[in-house]
Amino acid sequence: MDFEKLAPARRTIRRFAQQPVPDAELKHLIDMARFASCGSNKQLLRYLIIRHPETVKTVFDCTRWAGLVAPRRTPQWGIDAPLAFIAVTIPADASPIVIADAGAAIQSIEFAAWERSLGCCWFASFDPQVVKAATALDDSRKVLYLVAVGFPAESPVTEEAVDGDVAYYLDDQDTLHVPKLPVDELCQWL
Amino acid sequence: MDFEKLAPARRTIRRFAQQPVPDAELKHLIDMARFASCGSNKQLLRYLIIRHPETVKTVFDCTRWAGLVAPRRTPQWGIDAPLAFIAVTIPADASPIVIADAGAAIQSIEFAAWERSLGCCWFASFDPQVVKAATALDDSRKVLYLVAVGFPAESPVTEEAVDGDVAYYLDDQDTLHVPKLPVDELCQWL
Repeated sequence: MDFEKLAPARRTIRRFAQQPVPDAELKHLIDMARFASCGSNKQLLRYLIIRHPETVKTVFDCTRWAGLVAPRRTPQWGIDAPLAFIAVTIPADASPIVIADAGAAIQSIEFAAWERSLGCCWFASFDPQVVKAATALDDSRKVLYLVAVGFPAESPVTEEAVDGDVAYYLDDQDTLHVPKLPVDELCQWL
Repeated sequence: MDFEKLAPARRTIRRFAQQPVPDAELKHLIDMARFASCGSNKQLLRYLIIRHPETVKTVFDCTRWAGLVAPRRTPQWGIDAPLAFIAVTIPADASPIVIADAGAAIQSIEFAAWERSLGCCWFASFDPQVVKAATALDDSRKVLYLVAVGFPAESPVTEEAVDGDVAYYLDDQDTLHVPKLPVDELCQWL
């Protein structure tokens, strides 16, 4: 899909079909992310691909989902929860630029996923100790972010934000609306 | 361009044609970036679009270019320097998640640029006080990153990194090579 169509179309997904994501598809996401911009080309990010059900459930149980649309967009295990997570790890002593590296890489994962009819939900809010224990990660690295990956079971839409109100919401048909600020409100020309 | 072709093809550019980037193209980049993932959909990033030559030169003069290929990939003003910068600003009191937001947004800018035959160079290394003064940015915000934007005057290539060596280099034909780690070295399957 052309990027100019992909970027506006891609949305965060919080309800997932109970259909496993093939390993080849998960690998493809990392194969795209490895070309993302990163500080000094150091490539410090690594990826734990979590798809064994017991580990997925442990990780899922320590994630916190979007507060503004809870409980309707807090998925339930076995019903609409994701069947895979990607844990993005960084060196324990890394400088803050790796946070930007992770943002760039995860954005690439999300685009690659959407092009393959997959959806993602990116988490900064989870219990890192639970994930560390569940993945047997050693002390030299830490989990910075989680990304849930799966086949979407919802169809969120974007709309232009009015008066700067960016609060996302569910409508009467249970569709998630995500207001985005107009481009002219974001730019100052010099 | 399909994302699976775009992601591996896009490269950082450090030599630019002396051809101004149309405002409509610069606006398009932000129009794509505004859909990038961001924490709680808060959309805290703003963009200073710098293309007046005097301001561009002031900003250019305070940027530090890739050390491993200096001085051959440190562009010269009036020869191969960029004619536009995008300064990504954040609230002065923002939490670290906006660093990841900026990574996601800048990655989107870079993809959108490449699809329109433009190249970018993302800077974390510059003098923020110089940029703040040149752009008359008030104290409520700060410049987190700079992105140079222009029409490419070089054609860098990627290659598979061998033995973990990710040092980028110029070959005898003055082509920049950027080693990327193989996907199997980045993933652990759980």
